[in-house]
Amino acid sequence: MKIEKRLEELGIELPEPAIPVANYVTTVQTGNLIFTSGHGPGTGEGKIYKSQLGTDATIEEGYESARQVGLGLISTLKHALDDLDRIKRVVKVVGFVNSSADFTDQPAVVNGVSDLLVEVFGDKGKHARSAVGMVQLPGGIPVEVEMVVEIED
Amino acid sequence: MKIEKRLEELGIELPEPAIPVANYVTTVQTGNLIFTSGHGPGTGEGKIYKSQLGTDATIEEGYESARQVGLGLISTLKHALDDLDRIKRVVKVVGFVNSSADFTDQPAVVNGVSDLLVEVFGDKGKHARSAVGMVQLPGGIPVEVEMVVEIED
Amino acid sequence: MKIEKRLEELGIELPEPAIPVANYVTTVQTGNLIFTSGHGPGTGEGKIYKSQLGTDATIEEGYESARQVGLGLISTLKHALDDLDRIKRVVKVVGFVNSSADFTDQPAVVNGVSDLLVEVFGDKGKHARSAVGMVQLPGGIPVEVEMVVEIED
Repeated sequence: MKIEKRLEELGIELPEPAIPVANYVTTVQTGNLIFTSGHGPGTGEGKIYKSQLGTDATIEEGYESARQVGLGLISTLKHALDDLDRIKRVVKVVGFVNSSADFTDQPAVVNGVSDLLVEVFGDKGKHARSAVGMVQLPGGIPVEVEMVVEIED
Repeated sequence: MKIEKRLEELGIELPEPAIPVANYVTTVQTGNLIFTSGHGPGTGEGKIYKSQLGTDATIEEGYESARQVGLGLISTLKHALDDLDRIKRVVKVVGFVNSSADFTDQPAVVNGVSDLLVEVFGDKGKHARSAVGMVQLPGGIPVEVEMVVEIED
Repeated sequence: MKIEKRLEELGIELPEPAIPVANYVTTVQTGNLIFTSGHGPGTGEGKIYKSQLGTDATIEEGYESARQVGLGLISTLKHALDDLDRIKRVVKVVGFVNSSADFTDQPAVVNGVSDLLVEVFGDKGKHARSAVGMVQLPGGIPVEVEMVVEIED
């Protein structure tokens, strides 16, 4: 349970895992890949943090939201895998950032989840990434993130 | 041909499969995964249904469009696989919803394709999903959907 | 080195590979799949080409930008694989197009990368594809593209 220990060292408490409210699930495993659903910052607590980068959220707030999304994703993966040590590599992260027409700092926001993944998983947390600007997101959340993760055989 | 039978029971007639008009294809298989191109509601018939959620399409119309996109995707998969029973699991669905600046109900729209997949494929149709808001989509369609599907060895 | 020869025949010189500036990497390999980060047209040179389709970039300029993004992606893959002949198939391309509220020709823009991939890789370059409209992109670039590529065992 090295990753659990690392979370403790970092003082990180995971939120409850997300519960889908429709005909989909939070993760699907195919071979040794896990595809996650898009997660928002309210995932797991039912709370929704409505805001948009460039309108009423600063880059710092966006970064914090993205970090919170990352915590929810790690919680979802723990729920799916039982043991986070089974994660061999974070393969891909897509960060969808709720953006005003002139907001162009999506990468600085998505760093919130990228930095968390490397803090927690070390080199295994280094992922390929896309960061893009959305006109809106579900429930008005500032950021939604999906992942592809490789697990040990 | 259990899925074919299921489609018949549901009274579902699939549209013609989509035909790409450029240097890409509707599906690529790698190992036992199939990645699809993004499909719109007009795919297969050449018709285009221009509208935007929050502007001139209701959630109900968006849901119906997403269901229609799902039918096109199933048609594309049937064309690629010959036998829809070869589908082991719908792994991932991304729903890109053409959204006004204040439309935040993307999940209610993407449910149109999620509900269809579970109707047709049962538990095998339960997928990881992202639903996001786009400022525009090709041809002004209300929704575009891409999938990753796992097939039997 | 068939692909290197083909690039020479086409008179194509690849840009320097992209260098990520945060806690992510340009590619991750899992099994025989490579997932790339989203690339923009300035990738590799540090230059940024700010513009938006439907606002201050024509379809032709968008197409050229997408082609340039494609060159950067090929450069990244060469850097990751050493030998581009190891590419068995381009599986998936997602083209995120910086779009005004009424721009609906995303596919004509993303053709810039699709056409390049087929020019360079032939049938192996034929991919599943999604083309979507973004309200903004990092640094104000006109187009961002991510890929999934299958490599030989």
